[in-house]
Order: sequence, then C-alpha cells, then structure tokens
Amino acid sequence: MNRISSPTLLVDEQKVRANINRLAIKATANNLTLKPHFKTHQSAEIGKWFRDYDINKITVSSVKMAEYFAKHGWTDITIAFPCNILMSDEINALAKQISLSILISDTKTVELLNDKLTNAVNVYIEIDTGSKRTGIESENIADIEQVIKNINESSTLHFVGFYSHPGHSYGARSADEIQQIHQNTVRQMQGLKAHFKTNFPNLLICLGDTPCCSVGEGWDGVDEISPGNFVFYDLMQTMIGACNTSDIAVALACPVVAKYPQRKEIVVHGGAVHLSKETLKKDEVNTFGDIVSLHKDLSWGDEPVGGCYVKSISQEHGVIKCTPSFFNHINIGDIIGILPVHSCLTADTMREYKTCHDFKLLDHL
Amino acid sequence: MNRISSPTLLVDEQKVRANINRLAIKATANNLTLKPHFKTHQSAEIGKWFRDYDINKITVSSVKMAEYFAKHGWTDITIAFPCNILMSDEINALAKQISLSILISDTKTVELLNDKLTNAVNVYIEIDTGSKRTGIESENIADIEQVIKNINESSTLHFVGFYSHPGHSYGARSADEIQQIHQNTVRQMQGLKAHFKTNFPNLLICLGDTPCCSVGEGWDGVDEISPGNFVFYDLMQTMIGACNTSDIAVALACPVVAKYPQRKEIVVHGGAVHLSKETLKKDEVNTFGDIVSLHKDLSWGDEPVGGCYVKSISQEHGVIKCTPSFFNHINIGDIIGILPVHSCLTADTMREYKTCHDFKLLDHL
Repeated sequence: MNRISSPTLLVDEQKVRANINRLAIKATANNLTLKPHFKTHQSAEIGKWFRDYDINKITVSSVKMAEYFAKHGWTDITIAFPCNILMSDEINALAKQISLSILISDTKTVELLNDKLTNAVNVYIEIDTGSKRTGIESENIADIEQVIKNINESSTLHFVGFYSHPGHSYGARSADEIQQIHQNTVRQMQGLKAHFKTNFPNLLICLGDTPCCSVGEGWDGVDEISPGNFVFYDLMQTMIGACNTSDIAVALACPVVAKYPQRKEIVVHGGAVHLSKETLKKDEVNTFGDIVSLHKDLSWGDEPVGGCYVKSISQEHGVIKCTPSFFNHINIGDIIGILPVHSCLTADTMREYKTCHDFKLLDHL
Repeated sequence: MNRISSPTLLVDEQKVRANINRLAIKATANNLTLKPHFKTHQSAEIGKWFRDYDINKITVSSVKMAEYFAKHGWTDITIAFPCNILMSDEINALAKQISLSILISDTKTVELLNDKLTNAVNVYIEIDTGSKRTGIESENIADIEQVIKNINESSTLHFVGFYSHPGHSYGARSADEIQQIHQNTVRQMQGLKAHFKTNFPNLLICLGDTPCCSVGEGWDGVDEISPGNFVFYDLMQTMIGACNTSDIAVALACPVVAKYPQRKEIVVHGGAVHLSKETLKKDEVNTFGDIVSLHKDLSWGDEPVGGCYVKSISQEHGVIKCTPSFFNHINIGDIIGILPVHSCLTADTMREYKTCHDFKLLDHL
C-alpha cells in the first residue's frame, strides 16, 4: 500500500544494505569487529538486516535501548554512554541475560556501581581524544590507572579496554580533514594500548564515529568500531565528506499543502516534530533538508532537486524554496521527499518507517 | 513515586493553571473566545485542566491531533494548518462527529475538498499578516473574494471568518516590539472585517500566537484567540518578552552522569532526543536550556541557577557549563532540571509527563 497522506519516514532497504555491506567489508579488511551503533535506526526489524553481514555485537546509547534490543535477541551489547548509576538495577538485570559492556571514566561511578551489581559487566574506560564531551583525556594516565585499579578491585566489573568517540570529526568539511582527526585519534589510542598492554594483553580499542569509520584509513591497534549514522547517512555527513548524497537511505515523505507563486515557495506538512530542528549552512544558506522527487514505489534518485531546499520549519510546517521549474511541476496534494540534515534525530522523532518498493511498516523503539 | 532515573519531563500543574487562568481572564476582559492550541501539550489529561476555565473550543495542528482530542471528548476543534486534501476522508469522518473548522487559502483546495466531503465543515481563510509562512496576504482582496466565492458555492463548506498566526512576533525581543506587531496585525484584520462585514455580518477574526496573546493590548474587532505555547511557556518566550521565567511550567529532569572539574562542566543524560535541537542566543552564547535545582517534590524555584546553561547537546548527552559553586554542589547520580528553549518540541519528543508534587504520569498523543 503506497498511499501516503501524512509525513512518513521512508527507508530504502537497498541503500541501507549497501551502507552496511560497505562498512562490513572495510571492517573485515582491517581486522576490525564492527559493533554497529543502533541508536540511529532504533528498530528491531532494521537490526535484523545486519545479521546478514555477520554482525552479532551491537552498541546502543541508553539502558532502555539495550533492554529493547536484548528483548529482540541481541546477546552482546555495549552501552556507549557514561554509565548512569541511577539505573544500576536495570544494568544488573541486563547483565544477567546478556554479555553487557558499559563505559566508565571516573572512580565515583565504579564505587557506586560496585555496591549494586551482582552480575558480571564488561567495562570500557572512555577516553577523550579531542571531542571534549566525555571521557578521560588520553594523556591523563594517572586517572586512567586509578579507574582501572578500582575496577580490578571489583568482583563484578571487568576492564576490557578503551573506547573513544572522536565527535570532533563532525567539524570536518572534507575527507582529508576527517583523515587528520582519525590519525590523531588512532595515535592516542595506540599510545594507551602500548602503555597498558603488559598488564592487559587482550585489551580492546574501540572507536565510534561515522565520519572516521567511513573514510578513515590506517587502523593499526584498533580492534572494534561502533559507528551508527552510516546505516542511513544524511546531509550533515555529505557536508562533512563522509558519504555521497546517493548513500542517504531515508527520506521524509511530505504532503504539499500550499503554494506561493510570488515567492516560489511551497509549504508541506513536515516540520520540526518530523525532521527535528537540526540545520546546516550550505552555500551561506541555512537549510533543514534537501528535496527529492519520489517515484511510484516511494524510492528516489541519487541526487536531490538542484536549487531547492527546506528554508524554514515550524512545529508542523516546512517551507520549501523552489526553482521556478520545480515550483510549476508541483501541485497541492502531491508528495515530495526531504533528505534530512540529521537522520538519527529524524528517525527518533518519527518512530516508524515505511520501506520503499514493498511498503512495509517497520518498528522503532 | 518520585524516583527518577532517566530523562523525565516534569510539569508543574500550578504553573500551568496560573498560565491558563491569566489568559482566560484576559480573554474575558477583552470579549475574546479563548480556543487554546493543544499542539503544545498534546495531552488529553492536561487538556482536561482547561475545562475548569470554561474552555470548550480548541485548536490543533493536524488531523491526527484532532482525532485524538475528539476521542477525548472535545466537540469543537479547529485544525489551524493548511488543509491537507489527502486526508479528506478523515476530515469528513471527523466532521460527522464534531463541529470541525479548517483553514483554507486557495481555490484548488476548495475544489478538491468539495468533491470529497459529505459533512459540514467550517472554513477560516488564512491570512498572512506578515509572517510569510502561509495564508493570503491581507491586502490581496481579489484572491480572498475568489476563495470565499468558491466556498459559498459548496454545499458542505461554510465560510466563518479569517484566521492569522502572526509568527513574526517570535522575532520580537521586548513587550514593546510584540505590541507593534500586534497592533499591525489587528489593523489588517480590522480592515478585512470592515470590507466583508456587509455580506458576512457574523464573520469571526481569530489570532493565534502566544507572544501577542500574552502581552498584546487592544483587541477591537478580534473575536477569538488560539495561542498554544502559553500553557508551558519556555526560554524563547522569556527572551521575546512574552513571559517571566517563573511562568515556565515544564522542566526536563536529567541524571548527572559525569563531571569535568577542569572545564567546570557536568554531563547529563538529556540530549537532542529529549530537549529537541532548538537553541537560542543569550548574551552572545548559544544555549539549549537553563538549569534549575529540583526540590524533593520535583518542583523548582522561580529562577534558574545563575551562570549555568546547557552548552551543547548530542543525541543523548547534555553538557552543562557550571559556575564553580554549582559544580561543587552537584554529584554524579544527582538529578537536575533543564528549562527548555522550546517547550512544544520538548513535549513532542518526550511524549509523557510527570507532575510535580504528586508524581502522576500524564499521557501525550
């Protein structure tokens, strides 16, 4: 059933599978375990597609998300978010069911958690390699050693390695800039591995961001990668230089509800509660999305409609700036597609997908 | 049960009721019918609170929202969004159950809708009074007359008046600037009323935005108001000059998961999927929210913690810039409150509320 009458998030399974396959091949070639971050799609059904690429370990960003995917058969899950000690009961319950890994970067959390856990939990120490968000700075060996020491004194916590999300790669604007950040990150993690390998010969290095995982080269010393966004990609990733527009695997289908000939703008049902308020500046213009024409099977071509973009959004409205020819070609009651700026947030607000080609509805946490 | 372990949207019923009461009194004093916009809270249970202020007509922003509130006993609903003709079946079904009003601003929609409807629907013509989003420009009398003519030829559509949402009031930065926009809007609508009153002596003028409804003075010729955000307010409204910080009736409760003494930053579980990515610039600094200390009953004081703010957010992380004293006072495992920049979007992403004082869970569409 391909009738659409309200904002609907379309997912192109072929593009998703091509994105997974590309990264799975790269991981294998570089001797890396791909532990994809499921925060982007948050869908048990899309999660199943990863099984076809020999994925059996995954990453999530909350205890709630770990519970959801554990319920759907995933037995090795890393919660890549600073451990929330207020959920120690839930963490303990999960650790009884599955192989659970968490992130810690301070002794206080070790202490509080240790009092609560009765089941074994793997711990990565989170390292700040330059993003200045979370983790211990890689050069702060004293603090890292102290946290490891406290973890080792615990009967339930098991130190397994170091995790870093070099999120400053989102500031890159070319593959070369991503590569510089990647090399710098890998060097810091290699340093840590060298320092700690005598006492922990099996310690793992895990890196997390989509830009570096997509285009970074040189992975010596890295054991695991946990990117998320690559499953769908988006306009932000194309601007960073991490993907091509043709790789973007989701589009928001929106009904056209008004046309304004003088300003060559159309208005769609599709706003901040559908796309999210994420924006990016392209050619000095702020945009909330690019426009694609939808085929009868709800798929779309590889490139957006040139010269058209989402100029502004409010809660439910999207205002599309059009070229004269596109404007004339579109009518009230048509459906157009919008490629999102940040697909993780669009998926999170929409909470359901419709597949191109076969029009299946897919779930979301 | 006041235990919070994950991001939770708190609502202070007393503040909500004070906000409703203030506007209900103003509406009565100015001979206006208050038809509150329920897009902000989207909650059947919060909707019930409005009954205590003699509210029996409401406004919504989508057909889906109209269906939800009709199911919960509301019998007079205006969908203040350009009519989506792809949902004409749903509109027709709703019009059978309740007194339904819609917005139209073009003849094409009249024509397409007329073919589908069998039940009576009231129509406001949407007027663009300066926001440049949707509606016919107020001076474009020829187009307005044409749309009215087509509506009058329909057996199901009934022209009832003019609606405008002067959303450019969101660009105001003081009560005086709001007042200028308000006066200009009212003047345009008075002009239309004067022009059309001979043929339509009972036509209604309805105005929609929270800034003008909150602080605008002078309502001659206006019959109805349909603001939404005023029920909760938010930081954006305080910056515009539409409310005081003490009027903000929602706060996102977030667990503290990490502390960084050198940069005096704490990290909370609370990010873009909870607050939305709406931001505002205050004192040359971009912020995603202000910080409040929560009391034992989950209420908070009238003013945020000075010098602290949400500096950045990613999908699940919030990074809070702190003063040294606040930083020292907060521990991992504590819960802090964040006043949102845009409460409509925060409520939409959270989809559930917990009340202060009595800790009830309230629904959301």
